[in-house]
Amino acid sequence: MEGEPTRIMLAVNQSTIKGYPHASISSSRAFEWTLQKIVRSNTSGFKFLFLHVQVPDEDGFDDVDSIFASPDDFKDLKQRDNARGLQLLEFFVNRCHEIGVACEAWLKKGDPTEVICHEVKRVQPDFLVVGSRGIGRFKRVFVGTVSEFCAKHAECPVITVKRTVDETPEDQVDD
Amino acid sequence: MEGEPTRIMLAVNQSTIKGYPHASISSSRAFEWTLQKIVRSNTSGFKFLFLHVQVPDEDGFDDVDSIFASPDDFKDLKQRDNARGLQLLEFFVNRCHEIGVACEAWLKKGDPTEVICHEVKRVQPDFLVVGSRGIGRFKRVFVGTVSEFCAKHAECPVITVKRTVDETPEDQVDD
Repeated sequence: MEGEPTRIMLAVNQSTIKGYPHASISSSRAFEWTLQKIVRSNTSGFKFLFLHVQVPDEDGFDDVDSIFASPDDFKDLKQRDNARGLQLLEFFVNRCHEIGVACEAWLKKGDPTEVICHEVKRVQPDFLVVGSRGIGRFKRVFVGTVSEFCAKHAECPVITVKRTVDETPEDQVDD
Repeated sequence: MEGEPTRIMLAVNQSTIKGYPHASISSSRAFEWTLQKIVRSNTSGFKFLFLHVQVPDEDGFDDVDSIFASPDDFKDLKQRDNARGLQLLEFFVNRCHEIGVACEAWLKKGDPTEVICHEVKRVQPDFLVVGSRGIGRFKRVFVGTVSEFCAKHAECPVITVKRTVDETPEDQVDD
Protein backbone atom coordinates (compact mmCIF):
# COMPACT_ATOMS: atom_id res chain seq x y z
CA MET A 1 0.00 0.00 0.00
CA GLU A 2 3.01 2.37 0.02
CA GLY A 3 4.45 3.80 -3.22
CA GLU A 4 4.27 7.56 -3.80
CA PRO A 5 3.98 9.53 -0.55
CA THR A 6 0.72 11.30 0.29
CA ARG A 7 1.20 14.98 -0.60
CA ILE A 8 -0.21 17.28 2.06
CA MET A 9 -0.45 20.95 1.20
CA LEU A 10 -0.36 23.21 4.24
CA ALA A 11 -1.15 26.89 3.90
CA VAL A 12 0.86 28.81 6.50
CA ASN A 13 0.91 32.44 7.57
CA GLN A 14 2.69 34.71 10.00
CA SER A 15 1.59 35.63 13.52
CA THR A 16 -0.50 38.78 13.79
CA ILE A 17 0.86 39.25 17.31
CA LYS A 18 4.57 38.56 16.95
CA GLY A 19 4.85 39.25 13.20
CA TYR A 20 7.44 37.67 10.92
CA PRO A 21 9.21 35.27 11.11
CA HIS A 22 6.84 33.73 13.68
CA ALA A 23 4.14 31.40 12.42
CA SER A 24 0.53 32.10 13.38
CA ILE A 25 -0.93 29.99 16.17
CA SER A 26 -3.32 28.30 13.76
CA SER A 27 -0.61 27.45 11.20
CA SER A 28 1.60 25.90 13.89
CA ARG A 29 -1.35 24.05 15.36
CA ALA A 30 -2.45 22.67 11.98
CA PHE A 31 1.08 21.48 11.28
CA GLU A 32 1.61 19.83 14.67
CA TRP A 33 -1.84 18.21 14.50
CA THR A 34 -1.06 16.75 11.08
CA LEU A 35 2.22 15.35 12.33
CA GLN A 36 0.68 13.81 15.43
CA LYS A 37 -2.58 12.50 14.01
CA ILE A 38 -1.82 11.67 10.39
CA VAL A 39 1.90 11.33 9.72
CA ARG A 40 2.59 9.68 13.10
CA SER A 41 5.67 7.42 12.78
CA ASN A 42 5.19 6.91 9.03
CA THR A 43 7.58 9.71 8.05
CA SER A 44 8.38 8.24 4.64
CA GLY A 45 4.69 7.99 3.71
CA PHE A 46 4.05 11.73 3.50
CA LYS A 47 5.39 14.87 1.91
CA PHE A 48 4.51 18.40 3.02
CA LEU A 49 3.95 21.19 0.54
CA PHE A 50 4.10 24.49 2.44
CA LEU A 51 2.57 27.49 0.78
CA HIS A 52 2.81 30.98 2.22
CA VAL A 53 0.77 33.67 0.52
CA GLN A 54 1.87 37.22 1.24
CA VAL A 55 -0.83 39.85 1.08
CA PRO A 56 0.52 42.96 -0.67
CA ASP A 57 0.58 45.86 1.80
CA GLU A 58 -1.76 48.09 -0.21
CA ASP A 59 -1.85 50.82 2.38
CA GLY A 60 1.89 50.88 2.90
CA PHE A 61 1.23 51.01 6.64
CA ASP A 62 4.18 48.76 7.38
CA ASP A 63 6.51 51.28 5.87
CA VAL A 64 5.51 54.60 7.35
CA ASP A 65 8.90 55.00 8.99
CA SER A 66 10.95 54.04 5.97
CA ILE A 67 12.63 56.64 3.78
CA PHE A 68 12.51 56.17 0.03
CA ALA A 69 15.15 58.11 -1.81
CA SER A 70 15.73 56.03 -4.91
CA PRO A 71 14.10 53.26 -6.98
CA ASP A 72 16.47 50.85 -5.27
CA ASP A 73 14.82 51.55 -1.93
CA PHE A 74 11.61 50.06 -3.28
CA LYS A 75 13.52 47.09 -4.58
CA ASP A 76 15.01 46.62 -1.10
CA LEU A 77 11.51 46.71 0.31
CA LYS A 78 10.38 43.87 -1.92
CA GLN A 79 13.46 41.89 -1.07
CA ARG A 80 12.85 42.42 2.63
CA ASP A 81 9.27 41.17 2.23
CA ASN A 82 10.46 38.07 0.41
CA ALA A 83 13.10 37.48 3.07
CA ARG A 84 10.45 37.62 5.80
CA GLY A 85 8.25 35.11 3.97
CA LEU A 86 11.22 32.81 3.47
CA GLN A 87 12.07 32.94 7.17
CA LEU A 88 8.54 31.82 7.96
CA LEU A 89 8.81 28.90 5.55
CA GLU A 90 12.24 28.06 6.93
CA PHE A 91 10.67 27.30 10.30
CA PHE A 92 8.41 24.61 8.81
CA VAL A 93 11.10 23.19 6.55
CA ASN A 94 13.48 22.92 9.50
CA ARG A 95 10.88 21.06 11.56
CA CYS A 96 10.35 18.59 8.71
CA HIS A 97 14.08 18.13 8.36
CA GLU A 98 14.40 17.34 12.08
CA ILE A 99 11.60 14.78 11.91
CA GLY A 100 12.67 13.31 8.59
CA VAL A 101 9.58 14.12 6.51
CA ALA A 102 10.06 15.26 2.92
CA CYS A 103 8.83 18.74 2.07
CA GLU A 104 8.76 21.62 -0.38
CA ALA A 105 7.92 25.22 0.37
CA TRP A 106 7.17 28.24 -1.75
CA LEU A 107 6.03 31.82 -1.58
CA LYS A 108 3.28 33.59 -3.53
CA LYS A 109 1.78 37.04 -3.42
CA GLY A 110 -1.91 37.86 -3.66
CA ASP A 111 -5.25 37.16 -2.06
CA PRO A 112 -4.71 34.03 0.10
CA THR A 113 -8.06 32.42 -0.74
CA GLU A 114 -7.59 32.76 -4.50
CA VAL A 115 -3.94 31.85 -4.50
CA ILE A 116 -4.41 28.75 -2.32
CA CYS A 117 -7.21 27.42 -4.53
CA HIS A 118 -5.16 28.19 -7.63
CA GLU A 119 -2.12 26.40 -6.25
CA VAL A 120 -4.24 23.36 -5.30
CA LYS A 121 -5.36 23.17 -8.91
CA ARG A 122 -1.80 23.51 -10.15
CA VAL A 123 0.08 21.10 -7.84
CA GLN A 124 -2.81 18.72 -7.06
CA PRO A 125 -2.00 17.70 -3.49
CA ASP A 126 -3.82 14.70 -2.00
CA PHE A 127 -5.35 17.03 0.54
CA LEU A 128 -5.07 20.52 1.95
CA VAL A 129 -4.72 21.38 5.64
CA VAL A 130 -5.71 24.85 6.79
CA GLY A 131 -5.58 26.21 10.29
CA SER A 132 -8.56 28.14 11.58
CA ARG A 133 -8.91 30.69 14.33
CA GLY A 134 -12.32 29.19 15.06
CA ILE A 135 -13.83 32.62 15.53
CA GLY A 136 -17.55 33.06 16.11
CA ARG A 137 -20.14 33.85 13.49
CA PHE A 138 -20.40 37.53 14.41
CA LYS A 139 -16.71 38.33 14.09
CA ARG A 140 -16.47 36.17 10.98
CA VAL A 141 -18.66 38.56 9.05
CA PHE A 142 -16.03 41.26 9.45
CA VAL A 143 -12.78 39.39 9.16
CA GLY A 144 -13.71 36.68 6.64
CA THR A 145 -12.10 33.29 6.90
CA VAL A 146 -9.67 31.77 4.48
CA SER A 147 -10.33 28.29 5.85
CA GLU A 148 -14.06 28.41 5.08
CA PHE A 149 -13.48 29.60 1.55
CA CYS A 150 -10.88 26.90 0.86
CA ALA A 151 -13.02 24.13 2.36
CA LYS A 152 -15.72 25.09 -0.11
CA HIS A 153 -13.75 25.87 -3.24
CA ALA A 154 -10.45 23.96 -3.22
CA GLU A 155 -10.40 21.06 -5.68
CA CYS A 156 -9.17 18.47 -3.18
CA PRO A 157 -10.23 17.22 0.26
CA VAL A 158 -9.65 19.88 2.92
CA ILE A 159 -9.11 19.47 6.67
CA THR A 160 -9.68 22.50 8.82
CA VAL A 161 -7.87 22.37 12.13
CA LYS A 162 -8.94 24.80 14.85
CA ARG A 163 -6.71 26.16 17.59
CA THR A 164 -7.22 24.66 21.03
CA VAL A 165 -9.03 26.79 23.61
CA ASP A 166 -5.89 27.38 25.69
CA GLU A 167 -4.00 28.59 22.61
CA THR A 168 -6.64 31.17 21.68
CA PRO A 169 -5.57 34.77 22.41
CA GLU A 170 -7.82 37.19 24.25
CA ASP A 171 -8.88 38.80 20.99
CA GLN A 172 -9.91 35.85 18.84
CA VAL A 173 -9.05 37.73 15.68
CA ASP A 174 -5.39 37.69 16.71
CA ASP A 175 -3.39 34.71 15.59
CA MET B 1 5.45 9.45 18.07
CA GLU B 2 3.16 6.39 18.20
CA GLY B 3 1.10 5.56 21.31
CA GLU B 4 -2.69 5.59 21.08
CA PRO B 5 -3.97 5.11 17.52
CA THR B 6 -5.57 8.05 15.70
CA ARG B 7 -9.33 7.54 15.92
CA ILE B 8 -11.06 8.26 12.62
CA MET B 9 -14.83 8.47 12.66
CA LEU B 10 -16.42 7.63 9.31
CA ALA B 11 -20.10 8.26 8.74
CA VAL B 12 -21.40 5.66 6.28
CA ASN B 13 -24.72 5.18 4.54
CA GLN B 14 -26.44 2.83 2.13
CA SER B 15 -26.60 3.13 -1.65
CA THR B 16 -29.68 4.94 -2.97
CA ILE B 17 -29.39 2.88 -6.16
CA LYS B 18 -28.73 -0.64 -4.90
CA GLY B 19 -30.18 -0.21 -1.38
CA TYR B 20 -29.05 -2.18 1.64
CA PRO B 21 -26.65 -3.80 2.34
CA HIS B 22 -24.63 -1.92 -0.31
CA ALA B 23 -22.66 1.12 0.78
CA SER B 24 -23.19 4.41 -1.02
CA ILE B 25 -20.59 5.40 -3.58
CA SER B 26 -19.48 8.33 -1.43
CA SER B 27 -19.12 6.23 1.74
CA SER B 28 -17.01 3.63 -0.05
CA ARG B 29 -14.95 6.31 -1.73
CA ALA B 30 -14.33 8.16 1.57
CA PHE B 31 -13.24 4.91 3.21
CA GLU B 32 -10.90 3.82 0.41
CA TRP B 33 -9.43 7.32 0.16
CA THR B 34 -8.68 7.32 3.90
CA LEU B 35 -6.99 3.93 3.66
CA GLN B 36 -4.88 4.92 0.67
CA LYS B 37 -3.94 8.45 1.60
CA ILE B 38 -3.87 8.48 5.40
CA VAL B 39 -3.61 5.00 6.89
CA ARG B 40 -1.30 3.73 4.12
CA SER B 41 0.89 0.93 5.54
CA ASN B 42 0.62 2.17 9.13
CA THR B 43 -2.30 -0.12 10.01
CA SER B 44 -1.55 -0.14 13.74
CA GLY B 45 -1.55 3.66 13.92
CA PHE B 46 -5.26 4.11 13.23
CA LYS B 47 -8.65 2.94 14.41
CA PHE B 48 -11.88 3.39 12.45
CA LEU B 49 -15.14 4.27 14.16
CA PHE B 50 -17.97 3.55 11.71
CA LEU B 51 -21.27 5.20 12.39
CA HIS B 52 -24.38 4.48 10.36
CA VAL B 53 -27.40 6.67 11.02
CA GLN B 54 -30.71 5.24 9.86
CA VAL B 55 -33.35 7.76 8.92
CA PRO B 56 -36.73 6.61 10.25
CA ASP B 57 -39.07 5.87 7.34
CA GLU B 58 -41.69 8.43 8.30
CA ASP B 59 -43.85 7.82 5.28
CA GLY B 60 -43.79 4.05 5.59
CA PHE B 61 -43.11 3.90 1.84
CA ASP B 62 -40.70 1.02 2.22
CA ASP B 63 -43.44 -1.11 3.67
CA VAL B 64 -46.40 -0.64 1.37
CA ASP B 65 -46.38 -4.32 0.45
CA SER B 66 -46.05 -5.63 3.98
CA ILE B 67 -49.01 -6.97 5.92
CA PHE B 68 -49.33 -6.03 9.56
CA ALA B 69 -51.56 -8.34 11.55
CA SER B 70 -50.10 -8.14 15.03
CA PRO B 71 -47.83 -5.96 17.20
CA ASP B 72 -45.11 -8.51 16.50
CA ASP B 73 -45.17 -7.62 12.81
CA PHE B 74 -44.02 -4.13 13.71
CA LYS B 75 -41.34 -5.56 15.91
CA ASP B 76 -40.17 -7.71 13.00
CA LEU B 77 -40.03 -4.59 10.88
CA LYS B 78 -37.73 -2.87 13.33
CA GLN B 79 -35.56 -5.92 13.56
CA ARG B 80 -35.35 -6.10 9.79
CA ASP B 81 -34.26 -2.45 9.64
CA ASN B 82 -31.60 -3.06 12.25
CA ALA B 83 -30.41 -6.14 10.39
CA ARG B 84 -30.04 -4.12 7.20
CA GLY B 85 -28.02 -1.45 8.99
CA LEU B 86 -25.80 -4.10 10.54
CA GLN B 87 -25.13 -5.68 7.15
CA LEU B 88 -23.93 -2.32 5.88
CA LEU B 89 -21.57 -1.92 8.83
CA GLU B 90 -20.41 -5.52 8.39
CA PHE B 91 -19.00 -4.62 4.98
CA PHE B 92 -16.71 -1.97 6.48
CA VAL B 93 -15.75 -4.06 9.49
CA ASN B 94 -14.83 -6.96 7.20
CA ARG B 95 -12.63 -4.72 5.07
CA CYS B 96 -10.80 -3.48 8.18
CA HIS B 97 -10.36 -7.03 9.39
CA GLU B 98 -8.82 -8.04 6.03
CA ILE B 99 -6.39 -5.12 6.12
CA GLY B 100 -5.63 -5.42 9.83
CA VAL B 101 -6.90 -2.03 11.03
CA ALA B 102 -8.74 -1.84 14.34
CA CYS B 103 -12.35 -0.67 14.19
CA GLU B 104 -15.66 -0.28 15.96
CA ALA B 105 -19.06 0.18 14.35
CA TRP B 106 -22.46 1.19 15.61
CA LEU B 107 -25.95 2.06 14.50
CA LYS B 108 -28.11 5.03 15.43
CA LYS B 109 -31.50 6.28 14.33
CA GLY B 110 -32.41 9.88 13.63
CA ASP B 111 -31.44 12.88 11.54
CA PRO B 112 -27.93 12.10 10.21
CA THR B 113 -26.59 15.64 10.65
CA GLU B 114 -27.69 15.91 14.27
CA VAL B 115 -26.72 12.38 15.21
CA ILE B 116 -23.26 12.58 13.65
CA CYS B 117 -22.45 15.85 15.45
CA HIS B 118 -23.82 14.42 18.69
CA GLU B 119 -21.73 11.27 18.36
CA VAL B 120 -18.60 13.32 17.62
CA LYS B 121 -19.18 15.16 20.87
CA ARG B 122 -19.71 11.91 22.74
CA VAL B 123 -16.86 9.74 21.41
CA GLN B 124 -14.40 12.55 20.54
CA PRO B 125 -12.65 11.09 17.49
CA ASP B 126 -9.43 12.74 16.28
CA PHE B 127 -11.21 13.61 13.07
CA LEU B 128 -14.32 12.85 11.06
CA VAL B 129 -14.40 11.71 7.43
CA VAL B 130 -17.58 12.23 5.44
CA GLY B 131 -18.20 11.33 1.84
CA SER B 132 -19.85 13.87 -0.40
CA ARG B 133 -21.79 13.54 -3.62
CA GLY B 134 -20.23 16.81 -4.73
CA ILE B 135 -23.53 18.00 -6.16
CA GLY B 136 -23.91 21.49 -7.57
CA ARG B 137 -25.30 24.49 -5.78
CA PHE B 138 -28.73 24.32 -7.43
CA LYS B 139 -29.48 20.73 -6.52
CA ARG B 140 -27.99 21.23 -3.07
CA VAL B 141 -30.75 23.62 -2.11
CA PHE B 142 -33.27 20.82 -2.49
CA VAL B 143 -31.44 17.80 -1.17
CA GLY B 144 -29.32 19.40 1.58
CA THR B 145 -25.92 17.99 2.31
CA VAL B 146 -24.88 16.19 5.44
CA SER B 147 -21.21 16.76 4.68
CA GLU B 148 -21.52 20.55 4.60
CA PHE B 149 -23.42 20.63 7.88
CA CYS B 150 -20.89 18.38 9.63
CA ALA B 151 -17.89 20.32 8.29
CA LYS B 152 -19.38 23.40 9.89
CA HIS B 153 -20.76 22.06 13.15
CA ALA B 154 -18.85 18.94 14.21
CA GLU B 155 -16.52 19.56 17.16
CA CYS B 156 -13.45 17.99 15.54
CA PRO B 157 -11.53 18.42 12.29
CA VAL B 158 -13.56 17.16 9.32
CA ILE B 159 -12.38 15.92 5.91
CA THR B 160 -14.92 15.87 3.14
CA VAL B 161 -14.08 13.44 0.35
CA LYS B 162 -15.90 13.81 -2.96
CA ARG B 163 -16.62 10.99 -5.37
CA THR B 164 -14.47 10.89 -8.48
CA VAL B 165 -16.06 12.02 -11.75
CA ASP B 166 -16.15 8.50 -13.20
CA GLU B 167 -17.95 7.19 -10.11
CA THR B 168 -20.71 9.80 -10.29
CA PRO B 169 -24.05 8.39 -11.48
CA GLU B 170 -26.10 10.08 -14.20
CA ASP B 171 -28.37 11.65 -11.60
CA GLN B 172 -25.94 13.29 -9.18
CA VAL B 173 -28.42 12.99 -6.33
CA ASP B 174 -28.09 9.20 -6.56
CA ASP B 175 -25.37 7.65 -4.49
